[in-house]
Amino acid sequence: MSGQENARALGVGLIGTGFMGKCHALAWNSVRAVFGDVPPVRLVHLGEANAALASQRAAEFGFAKASGDWRAVISDPDVDIVSITTPNQFHPEMALAALQAGKHVWCEKPMAPAFDDAKAMTAAAKQSGKVAALGYNYIQGPAIRHIRQLLAEKIIGDVNHLRIEMDEDFMADPDALFYWKHAATSGYGALDDFAVHPLSLLWALFGRVSRVMCDMSKPYAERRTQDGGMKAVETYDSASVLLHMENGVAGTLQVNRSAWGRKGRIALQIFGSKGSILFDQERANEFQLYVTADRPTEQGYRTILTAPHHDPYGRFIPAPGHGLGFNDLKIIECHELIKRINGETAHLIGFEDGLEIERTVHAMARSFNEQRWVDVR
Amino acid sequence: MSGQENARALGVGLIGTGFMGKCHALAWNSVRAVFGDVPPVRLVHLGEANAALASQRAAEFGFAKASGDWRAVISDPDVDIVSITTPNQFHPEMALAALQAGKHVWCEKPMAPAFDDAKAMTAAAKQSGKVAALGYNYIQGPAIRHIRQLLAEKIIGDVNHLRIEMDEDFMADPDALFYWKHAATSGYGALDDFAVHPLSLLWALFGRVSRVMCDMSKPYAERRTQDGGMKAVETYDSASVLLHMENGVAGTLQVNRSAWGRKGRIALQIFGSKGSILFDQERANEFQLYVTADRPTEQGYRTILTAPHHDPYGRFIPAPGHGLGFNDLKIIECHELIKRINGETAHLIGFEDGLEIERTVHAMARSFNEQRWVDVR
Amino acid sequence: MSGQENARALGVGLIGTGFMGKCHALAWNSVRAVFGDVPPVRLVHLGEANAALASQRAAEFGFAKASGDWRAVISDPDVDIVSITTPNQFHPEMALAALQAGKHVWCEKPMAPAFDDAKAMTAAAKQSGKVAALGYNYIQGPAIRHIRQLLAEKIIGDVNHLRIEMDEDFMADPDALFYWKHAATSGYGALDDFAVHPLSLLWALFGRVSRVMCDMSKPYAERRTQDGGMKAVETYDSASVLLHMENGVAGTLQVNRSAWGRKGRIALQIFGSKGSILFDQERANEFQLYVTADRPTEQGYRTILTAPHHDPYGRFIPAPGHGLGFNDLKIIECHELIKRINGETAHLIGFEDGLEIERTVHAMARSFNEQRWVDVR
Amino acid sequence: MSGQENARALGVGLIGTGFMGKCHALAWNSVRAVFGDVPPVRLVHLGEANAALASQRAAEFGFAKASGDWRAVISDPDVDIVSITTPNQFHPEMALAALQAGKHVWCEKPMAPAFDDAKAMTAAAKQSGKVAALGYNYIQGPAIRHIRQLLAEKIIGDVNHLRIEMDEDFMADPDALFYWKHAATSGYGALDDFAVHPLSLLWALFGRVSRVMCDMSKPYAERRTQDGGMKAVETYDSASVLLHMENGVAGTLQVNRSAWGRKGRIALQIFGSKGSILFDQERANEFQLYVTADRPTEQGYRTILTAPHHDPYGRFIPAPGHGLGFNDLKIIECHELIKRINGETAHLIGFEDGLEIERTVHAMARSFNEQRWVDVR
Repeated sequence: MSGQENARALGVGLIGTGFMGKCHALAWNSVRAVFGDVPPVRLVHLGEANAALASQRAAEFGFAKASGDWRAVISDPDVDIVSITTPNQFHPEMALAALQAGKHVWCEKPMAPAFDDAKAMTAAAKQSGKVAALGYNYIQGPAIRHIRQLLAEKIIGDVNHLRIEMDEDFMADPDALFYWKHAATSGYGALDDFAVHPLSLLWALFGRVSRVMCDMSKPYAERRTQDGGMKAVETYDSASVLLHMENGVAGTLQVNRSAWGRKGRIALQIFGSKGSILFDQERANEFQLYVTADRPTEQGYRTILTAPHHDPYGRFIPAPGHGLGFNDLKIIECHELIKRINGETAHLIGFEDGLEIERTVHAMARSFNEQRWVDVR
Repeated sequence: MSGQENARALGVGLIGTGFMGKCHALAWNSVRAVFGDVPPVRLVHLGEANAALASQRAAEFGFAKASGDWRAVISDPDVDIVSITTPNQFHPEMALAALQAGKHVWCEKPMAPAFDDAKAMTAAAKQSGKVAALGYNYIQGPAIRHIRQLLAEKIIGDVNHLRIEMDEDFMADPDALFYWKHAATSGYGALDDFAVHPLSLLWALFGRVSRVMCDMSKPYAERRTQDGGMKAVETYDSASVLLHMENGVAGTLQVNRSAWGRKGRIALQIFGSKGSILFDQERANEFQLYVTADRPTEQGYRTILTAPHHDPYGRFIPAPGHGLGFNDLKIIECHELIKRINGETAHLIGFEDGLEIERTVHAMARSFNEQRWVDVR
Repeated sequence: MSGQENARALGVGLIGTGFMGKCHALAWNSVRAVFGDVPPVRLVHLGEANAALASQRAAEFGFAKASGDWRAVISDPDVDIVSITTPNQFHPEMALAALQAGKHVWCEKPMAPAFDDAKAMTAAAKQSGKVAALGYNYIQGPAIRHIRQLLAEKIIGDVNHLRIEMDEDFMADPDALFYWKHAATSGYGALDDFAVHPLSLLWALFGRVSRVMCDMSKPYAERRTQDGGMKAVETYDSASVLLHMENGVAGTLQVNRSAWGRKGRIALQIFGSKGSILFDQERANEFQLYVTADRPTEQGYRTILTAPHHDPYGRFIPAPGHGLGFNDLKIIECHELIKRINGETAHLIGFEDGLEIERTVHAMARSFNEQRWVDVR
Repeated sequence: MSGQENARALGVGLIGTGFMGKCHALAWNSVRAVFGDVPPVRLVHLGEANAALASQRAAEFGFAKASGDWRAVISDPDVDIVSITTPNQFHPEMALAALQAGKHVWCEKPMAPAFDDAKAMTAAAKQSGKVAALGYNYIQGPAIRHIRQLLAEKIIGDVNHLRIEMDEDFMADPDALFYWKHAATSGYGALDDFAVHPLSLLWALFGRVSRVMCDMSKPYAERRTQDGGMKAVETYDSASVLLHMENGVAGTLQVNRSAWGRKGRIALQIFGSKGSILFDQERANEFQLYVTADRPTEQGYRTILTAPHHDPYGRFIPAPGHGLGFNDLKIIECHELIKRINGETAHLIGFEDGLEIERTVHAMARSFNEQRWVDVR
């Protein structure tokens, strides 16, 4: 790698080293090896609240500098882009600071607990002229990207109905103690934690939601506290939403973070005039297609394993059916991000589209509170 | 078979010889061979609008007499019970007549297109003192019956969320011509055709529905007519319903008769405090159970194949995993019916409970029309 | 049913009322109601070793007469055909007697423990001019019959490899006591119990086996006896066979009656030059098809649910995806039997073909004993 | 990263940049970020036959130096370990040279086409005292590693039967032209291409194979050549093997590289005295477990999704059910390799065990040639 190449290298700052922080770090480490067609990546500066941890993670993740103050990352002149992977409530301040410092921003979703903050972030991004992208990685899977293509070529005709569910069980244990996610200060519940993910898929495949009618429920009305008492749970682990898309299609969206047995389910059912498509993130390396073009006596859902001809699977593995993993989605997202920085067309959810997703979530909550259909815009 | 036995035999009349008529006939032919513990069954009189067809079917199905007039079946003194399997609009008149003639009635679901007719049927049944049962066969499957037991023993703890979907694709072809089911005179659409089935399962597993919020949609706004024109479709092929059960559990119910790829799907997801249960009628010989009692590192959905220890599978086959078929469900239902006639406890939906199911469907339609939550009662 | 019709009726005798006896009884009770196009069936005479049980079962199954002596059934002048469903060792004597008495014979498989007996039965059948059919019901499933058609039209091109497995777990418990099936007097083990079933499917789909190379194994070398001792197990619960078909295709056949978790698995993998087909009897209402004629990016196994267009599913149910059960296979077989009696083409394994299946099983055993490839003929 | 740390860094050389070369490069780029507990990794020198390509890949993969001569990599004093990912025929020369140069070696499988070469490599590795490991990545999946633990704790009791299949379809097209893999000079066929993979799993789970009986077959006897003629195919795309393990368990191993529809299937069935385990590499993020310890009425295969408690899944992702990919297996393998270099216990197939795997493959071929059972040793 010559000095000239270094001149063109992309300087990366990373704030946060938890689940998503590590995921970003892995993506930055691998994106050039996987795709080849990107400039060198320099891991410049890592920020983490605890300075010692920052140093340790910097060494592990391959970052040159470490800091216990995230502002040091943002103000580092060698940093071109900042990965923000801290808890959601810190996103607004960090993203605004990074944009103001003239950095590109790659921020984990959702943008912010408060919609006004998300609006401010979007405005700042627009004003900055910098790339401001969100970490909606599920839209990057080869299966989902191929489904998007199939829908565009109308392989199942005109879509007329859709259902999407996202379920996990990390809140399902009734004996787990009351903690901050059970308090109203943390937001609505599953609606915040999950709904943005299926909405990102709906965005990628169909566009925007126009109307919503939402119900929410609590599996456990109260939970034990550490001192042995009981406390009323204020958030809703489950939300069920009737919805209409702007394109006229009706469907449903359901999320549940207390669904025992579900680990990373994001199940999609898409019905059209000439067939249907099924997908489940728990088996993300396959999807199912039913087409009426097949002879009637042999019509059935095809289980299609992802393969090199499902872009960009082939950049990872030249053989079909071998499978990508969750972390690979972030590498693809990182590649799209670099394409956008380079001014190329990219499949990525920026702050503007992300704002619409969050607007939809807030509309759902309002619908539940007011017990009526609500227009998103 | 002695004369004494004949004296105790149950005389059967059958009206209608279509899909369900044949299914009833098969049940009556087999119920004693399968279960043994029932009185002899005499196939007395078969009624079908066309007299020639009536004779042909009587010979095939093993009925002694045939008639082109259904009233002849009902007035036949050798008939103790009448199977009514004609199109829904004929149910009220026939059921009322049969009850008035002092016969037991086994009527296919739903009871009647008009709720007032269903109410009249229920009142007549009560007054008659005769058994008046409905053909909700899906509640009879060994998997569903075993799930019912598992819920009763709280194997998944307290249920806190449920989802049920019923989808087929017999209306999915956009090129199919406009016919009577597309006209408002046929009812609401999928809500009538399908919703009673998942509601029967909810009834069997959880009890009654208290509140509903329904959305409906049409995949095809208009359809071609035989004369080459186009006609607006007036019924809704898809309905999505938010619902609350009387026991406090929230969930959703979705039906779609234009869902390409689905043939006989009735998919149930039941989440509880200690596990969850999944079932799909398309693979009715199995169900899935997740329990937190399993060691965490080996928790997963168990795919449980029905077997002799799942009552009454063993009456049909002494070996596990060999599978029952759709027609076998009606044999089980027939056995329950005979038990009820004999004054024994039976697992069966009578007119009174059936009326509540239909009340719920009408509440769904009202909810859609008024775009608001509706209390069922 | 008029007297004239009775004159043409088929008089049925049944010997044995266990698993398969009841299955035959159900088939005889339902075959005309399902198919319509067959003569009336008269249930004439039932034989069972215990006279009291014979009477009880006759009443339940609808037979007019009952007898504790099977010879009474065979000599009954009203009996045209005898269903033989007793344990295998009784088949030769009963079948020979029935054929000599001028009756058609419907005998459960396998024909006989000793190959010479099977040869004698085949010779007797040929000499008698009567129909002598075996109860190989798995070849009758709509999925298997449709696969047979698809192979004939070369939808997957030329078949070049096949694998078939049959596994259950009824012998899998190591704590179960030694009983007669563990003694060498009962035969080889899984080879007798199971191998004829997959061989019947191979026969139906591909024809005869030419060469075999067999290995067998015992999961448990010894078992406890009732008196608390231990006894060496002499039969083999598992057999694995390399085989070549007469048509040149190579493959494998595996059977295991101690395979925990398997209940009624008969899994078939068929590979051809243009695709492949998968089937598993545990999910007998579906099969899987992969064809290279599909566009490469959407190639995948189609899960095809059986439906009315998969003959003869439609005779049972007019709606797709609703599913037949194990007992329905025997009804189809019964219908084929009646067709053959009527001189029509029928899809059925007669004694002659059954003899070849048993010849193959014995060749497998010889191969194991001699530890070498053995030609079947 | 301080100078001191650099002193302890592991210097990596990579030869070959195809499928496995890129896979190694990705592993070396990510292993420290994923696991943390390893020394810094310095990507020192990349070798590739074409010098220009070497430079390009070095830039993409992050290697400091590039060379068109693989000997330059091996002789580079900054290189501590050499990844050898070239075609199999080059392995012996490169591995021997690397070991003689005092480098650790990480060589892709199989070791060498000729068994004598593999023996020489093993001897050289032993003499060198260096780590010499093979790239058997399938043994590294969290599901397989957890299955290994479950077998060790006898969750399914004593294993008594096993079946393993590896199938893909990259040779299945009958219209593909004759190429070098169809010539006998390339080896036996599927036996070389695939058999080492399932054997590596058997090694990891059960130990060594003692006896084999092998059959092989060709789906296409001849293939077209580029000049329009036909040429006889000399290799076998399919092999079926009866086998006995040294621990006494009998089973089968089947491989097929012309199995239309199979993409990366490695299907394992393990039967024991108290349950069974199923696994398929096409759905590598899950496995199935059946245990008789479950209550009989709810026994069934559990589909268990991999999760952080299945080591080392948690190093990649802290949430269950999100899934690893094929490339992640190589990262795990790389971590095991570093552990071994550091003198720690590691789960890895070294040259000595790899030699036994290849000995088994050659015994299979000999068995087929001599049409008899062959002892591996």
